[in-house]
Amino acid sequence: MLEKIFAELDNAYPEMVEIRRYLHMHPEPSFHETETAKFIRNFYEQLGVDIRYNVGGNGVIATIRGGKPGKTIALRADFDALPIQDQKETSYKSTVPNVVHACGHDGHTATLLVLGKVLHRLREELPGTYVLIHQHAEELAPGGAKPMIEDGALDGVDVIFGTHLWSTTPFGRIDYRTGPIMAAADRFEITVQGRGGHGAMPHETVDAVVAGAQLVNNLQQLVSRRVDPLESAVLTIASFMAENPFNIIADQSKLNGTVRSFTEQTRSLVEHEMQRIVDGTATATGSQIDFKFHRGYPPVVNHAKETEFLKDLAADVPGVTQVNNCPPQMGGEDFAYYLEEIPGTFFFTGAMPDGEVYPHHHPKFDFKEEAMLIAAKTLGKAAVTSHE
Amino acid sequence: MLEKIFAELDNAYPEMVEIRRYLHMHPEPSFHETETAKFIRNFYEQLGVDIRYNVGGNGVIATIRGGKPGKTIALRADFDALPIQDQKETSYKSTVPNVVHACGHDGHTATLLVLGKVLHRLREELPGTYVLIHQHAEELAPGGAKPMIEDGALDGVDVIFGTHLWSTTPFGRIDYRTGPIMAAADRFEITVQGRGGHGAMPHETVDAVVAGAQLVNNLQQLVSRRVDPLESAVLTIASFMAENPFNIIADQSKLNGTVRSFTEQTRSLVEHEMQRIVDGTATATGSQIDFKFHRGYPPVVNHAKETEFLKDLAADVPGVTQVNNCPPQMGGEDFAYYLEEIPGTFFFTGAMPDGEVYPHHHPKFDFKEEAMLIAAKTLGKAAVTSHE
Amino acid sequence: MLEKIFAELDNAYPEMVEIRRYLHMHPEPSFHETETAKFIRNFYEQLGVDIRYNVGGNGVIATIRGGKPGKTIALRADFDALPIQDQKETSYKSTVPNVVHACGHDGHTATLLVLGKVLHRLREELPGTYVLIHQHAEELAPGGAKPMIEDGALDGVDVIFGTHLWSTTPFGRIDYRTGPIMAAADRFEITVQGRGGHGAMPHETVDAVVAGAQLVNNLQQLVSRRVDPLESAVLTIASFMAENPFNIIADQSKLNGTVRSFTEQTRSLVEHEMQRIVDGTATATGSQIDFKFHRGYPPVVNHAKETEFLKDLAADVPGVTQVNNCPPQMGGEDFAYYLEEIPGTFFFTGAMPDGEVYPHHHPKFDFKEEAMLIAAKTLGKAAVTSHE
Amino acid sequence: MLEKIFAELDNAYPEMVEIRRYLHMHPEPSFHETETAKFIRNFYEQLGVDIRYNVGGNGVIATIRGGKPGKTIALRADFDALPIQDQKETSYKSTVPNVVHACGHDGHTATLLVLGKVLHRLREELPGTYVLIHQHAEELAPGGAKPMIEDGALDGVDVIFGTHLWSTTPFGRIDYRTGPIMAAADRFEITVQGRGGHGAMPHETVDAVVAGAQLVNNLQQLVSRRVDPLESAVLTIASFMAENPFNIIADQSKLNGTVRSFTEQTRSLVEHEMQRIVDGTATATGSQIDFKFHRGYPPVVNHAKETEFLKDLAADVPGVTQVNNCPPQMGGEDFAYYLEEIPGTFFFTGAMPDGEVYPHHHPKFDFKEEAMLIAAKTLGKAAVTSHE
Repeated sequence: MLEKIFAELDNAYPEMVEIRRYLHMHPEPSFHETETAKFIRNFYEQLGVDIRYNVGGNGVIATIRGGKPGKTIALRADFDALPIQDQKETSYKSTVPNVVHACGHDGHTATLLVLGKVLHRLREELPGTYVLIHQHAEELAPGGAKPMIEDGALDGVDVIFGTHLWSTTPFGRIDYRTGPIMAAADRFEITVQGRGGHGAMPHETVDAVVAGAQLVNNLQQLVSRRVDPLESAVLTIASFMAENPFNIIADQSKLNGTVRSFTEQTRSLVEHEMQRIVDGTATATGSQIDFKFHRGYPPVVNHAKETEFLKDLAADVPGVTQVNNCPPQMGGEDFAYYLEEIPGTFFFTGAMPDGEVYPHHHPKFDFKEEAMLIAAKTLGKAAVTSHE
Repeated sequence: MLEKIFAELDNAYPEMVEIRRYLHMHPEPSFHETETAKFIRNFYEQLGVDIRYNVGGNGVIATIRGGKPGKTIALRADFDALPIQDQKETSYKSTVPNVVHACGHDGHTATLLVLGKVLHRLREELPGTYVLIHQHAEELAPGGAKPMIEDGALDGVDVIFGTHLWSTTPFGRIDYRTGPIMAAADRFEITVQGRGGHGAMPHETVDAVVAGAQLVNNLQQLVSRRVDPLESAVLTIASFMAENPFNIIADQSKLNGTVRSFTEQTRSLVEHEMQRIVDGTATATGSQIDFKFHRGYPPVVNHAKETEFLKDLAADVPGVTQVNNCPPQMGGEDFAYYLEEIPGTFFFTGAMPDGEVYPHHHPKFDFKEEAMLIAAKTLGKAAVTSHE
Repeated sequence: MLEKIFAELDNAYPEMVEIRRYLHMHPEPSFHETETAKFIRNFYEQLGVDIRYNVGGNGVIATIRGGKPGKTIALRADFDALPIQDQKETSYKSTVPNVVHACGHDGHTATLLVLGKVLHRLREELPGTYVLIHQHAEELAPGGAKPMIEDGALDGVDVIFGTHLWSTTPFGRIDYRTGPIMAAADRFEITVQGRGGHGAMPHETVDAVVAGAQLVNNLQQLVSRRVDPLESAVLTIASFMAENPFNIIADQSKLNGTVRSFTEQTRSLVEHEMQRIVDGTATATGSQIDFKFHRGYPPVVNHAKETEFLKDLAADVPGVTQVNNCPPQMGGEDFAYYLEEIPGTFFFTGAMPDGEVYPHHHPKFDFKEEAMLIAAKTLGKAAVTSHE
Repeated sequence: MLEKIFAELDNAYPEMVEIRRYLHMHPEPSFHETETAKFIRNFYEQLGVDIRYNVGGNGVIATIRGGKPGKTIALRADFDALPIQDQKETSYKSTVPNVVHACGHDGHTATLLVLGKVLHRLREELPGTYVLIHQHAEELAPGGAKPMIEDGALDGVDVIFGTHLWSTTPFGRIDYRTGPIMAAADRFEITVQGRGGHGAMPHETVDAVVAGAQLVNNLQQLVSRRVDPLESAVLTIASFMAENPFNIIADQSKLNGTVRSFTEQTRSLVEHEMQRIVDGTATATGSQIDFKFHRGYPPVVNHAKETEFLKDLAADVPGVTQVNNCPPQMGGEDFAYYLEEIPGTFFFTGAMPDGEVYPHHHPKFDFKEEAMLIAAKTLGKAAVTSHE
């Protein structure tokens, strides 16, 4: 059976490339992916695959029922692009100004569509049911995963698998990890309201630059002293903004930044302790400090059994040359929400291009398209062997 | 003699008001006061007073030689306006957008012109020589005083007096002080060059926000621990600028601010210690920190003998109700340069208006015009009695 | 009259030296000066001078009534020694281990006793009344001045004068100052209570070293930003004590130090703002911080009229070569309490010795004894001419 | 074969307890364990086992050669006690004041001695060679492992195993971990040399309390910003010592503490960055700062293959109820040195007592003696099955 799937995928690879390039030339930013959703819908409709569309927004779900009994397996691909100007010179360059697929979601979509086509064609021989989740808006919190789940995307699903093509991971390598594989990525905004005044009269003011600097300083203790040293956490103050004539004491300073963590416990601790440090610094400096903590996606926490399963099955997928227990990544992914509901695992498919390598979200980002075939085969094998 | 001068000034008071209001309606910003300079020049030329113009820039100097032997006494009035939009509603509102006499230099000029006219008229009976320094560009470093001195403004001058009409000092009061009466007002710029990067990868960066905040913090010790507690010093960091997306660690932060002090020793100490703290913070944080210290005007340091003389003579000037030993002010004045060259004193003439009171440089700033008469009498008395 | 007093004092100078040296050899620490008090009492009793003893403790007050009408003038001398081991080699070295007159109070006492003897002898010719306040316990808060005042020391007194012999001021010079001449010297104790633990488990602790360090840091802003730059204030953290094995996180740290200021307003501001910074730092660090502020003596604030009077009269006192408007001193003195009740002034009498000069409270401190004669003449002149 | 070993160990358990209790009653501190070494030596000599003694100090090595070919397997047990007063009430309480086996090394020794006896008895049937390393001085850097290795302890050894009885790990559980399982534990000492002085004269001093506090503060950024967030590091400043009278500015402050890390890279980074922060803080504050970093043991880094082997074999050792992939521990162990030389693994044997549980190094520490039997069986199985 697997050999048949792999052979069909090999045959369909040119179509995969074609779809990917078409999507690459017609990117849409998060929450505005209506044409892309239509494209996906049409693709399945022409094949006669059951679909639901407008799931939790622009989401599309195709369902393929195998001819034999088995579990219900979900596979997920996201399809939104980024508000970045494409700076590559390729035949399939983005045709939309300031929007580009700089994270590979076009590849994810092409991979899953073609895999879906193959599964559909072979459905009579397959056990179980296959729920193909085409998700919108991964790049922008609150994301598309949550509303799609709320709109029933996981109803009846037993296990879920997802992958990310990764431009800085060598081609041929699959990176897996049990437990946290991607971080919770939260965002905060702080406004320090002092009382401005003449630069020579500090005693009549509350200096919002000094108060802000003291806060930056005090916040360093959070990671250095309050987070369990065996846990990872990052607290970055990205901006400190207080612009005034040279002889004016700042009335206000504005700070913002991000917090990364891998467990809900650390994440809550950081949020709670930040509030405490903010409150204490406000008292100590006599300023008013407003603190807003915006939770992004939770950490992507892979389930142990499914990850072991994936690790083992990936080893002899054609094209896979290495299966690697990777360290967690500090970026976020709303695949996290699926794994909060049901078992599953999220892995990286090495897609490092041959020439110059650019990181994800770079204006010249690209990936090696053959990696889509590996991704399709690995997801396909995971899907059809999960019933055994 | 004094009675005659006082009487003439009383008679000329309407002219003083007229001149002041004309100048108020036609303000020119620092280093651009060409029409004002022409006005002053015409005024003296019509009277037949000896003048020099374009002295060190737009400066004008009138010289009146008395009929009797005596010292050479300089009186100084500045005549530049500020780049501020007039927000008062008065008949003599500024007619120039975004320029206004919001510091009373129009009053200084009217005062000295009319006093000059009176001294000129009575010159035969007067001892000594009177050098009336109409100075441009007090508001903007490097100022007009220095180039005027370099262009000979003080040549042959024995003593100098100057006053500032002051809107927050009660009308009728003269504020004097021996030693420092106005501060050295310096300016600095700091650029903290770190190495930016992804908000989740602090170890691959040098965080310019954290380094800048540490610097702000470390600089607090300068005033708290290194300046003699019996000396005054202010170090204000007015701006802290580092603006980045929330998930990017700052590559650079820019700080600027001001330092105020009353002695050259404290001023040099602060500059030197700032450099040391900057260097140490750069080493500790691994950043490159560029520090530029721009010296503004030196402190205005009144000479003891001339200040005692002024204090004593002011007591029975008509209209003066109080002579007050005032604390020093943190603002700067380029009158400082004159006092570095020759003896003299600078004092404040109370000019608090009857209704709402606004501080100097406020868009609604105004002063009580009768204070010009008191200023003229006090300067006049100082000038003609300095020979005794 | 003055000439007579000066001549008598000249004659009595050997006795002054003898008394001073006797007291120097028999010093008693603050609040334990019973033998010294007896010595003073005996001295006056033998002369038949009216005295009160045990005034507010070990205080002794002698009252001399002049034969003519006049004001009641108080003169004050303190008589306690310090808990320091004398390290001088002189014939009049302290005979008591670990106690020595290292601040010149022996000289003050000898000066006032001999001046009292002279005033007593000439009393018939003198106007007014002379209250000679021999005060115990100046060196140790709460001091002797306050209880002596509460016990009536100033009852009926119009004006008070006091002086301090000063080893680092040139012999022949009188230092005066209107307004604050000596600081408020307060003391504080801070206990930072964290929660100790294993050095490798910071997240399970509240680190009292880090919290204490943050407090030290935050407190720097008090002087740098919250005190009027035209006012003086010092906040010194003298001790930071947290001693632990190298692998144990501190449970507690203890800080103490001193605050100096020259006005009640600044003093209260500092106390209040310290509390605020302490509270904020406790909140920010999650520690409990106990803060105790112990007020020492208030600032010694000289009255303007009496200071002018003293300055003028000192100029032609025999032996006085310079009368100097001095900066304020950061040390404290409980003479402050007298000046809170009645007009008066406190001045320094230059007493720099010829050879090596040691500061007050140094184990080798000594002063030039001839300064006692100048002090006696200046105080005497102030006392007998205050009635005019 | 394994059954035979397990049965013999079961039979010998009373002897194991007897030995452990004897050693517990006669503890010797690190580097002074001469009687314990003699006890071990006698034990083996009486059995006729080959031994070397005084290996690298007080170390003893017994070698048992099996009757069949195989690898050379080392097992290690440490035997030093701690300078702590025993506060337990047990029949086998320490008889030596201020010395006690508060870390379970008595148990390690009893376990290995009895296992050695069993292996010796069954040697003819066993493959390979068994090197039983009885190591002195684990508790005190530089430790006994390093000199024993230098003295040949690992010559010809292929693999090494070691375990630690652990009082806070449930009885029946084996804790293993690939990679770092125990931290590098380093120690540092810092002396901040300022220039002391009068508490009211900060400008004449370099304040060693303020400089020290700034250093504590600046050091927080090391863990928060410079260490890879995916790596663990702890920097604890345990002591801050500057004790002065309340009115004296500190001349010197002394800090000490510990650094924990799990890789040589992080460890070197921390040491290097500490030096940089120290240097920068010295420059910024004008103080001299002396920094000494004393390296303790390196991290204990378990080899992957041997750890997998141990994990698998432990699962069905009689008495083992759970085999657990544990997080690393922040404590140090000189077993690290063996693993720098040859493959092997170090694991924890759960030994939580039934009643009150005290952590290691606590004066009331004790462990469940039955855990020795589990340790012996696990080590024994590892040793005799490593040849397959």
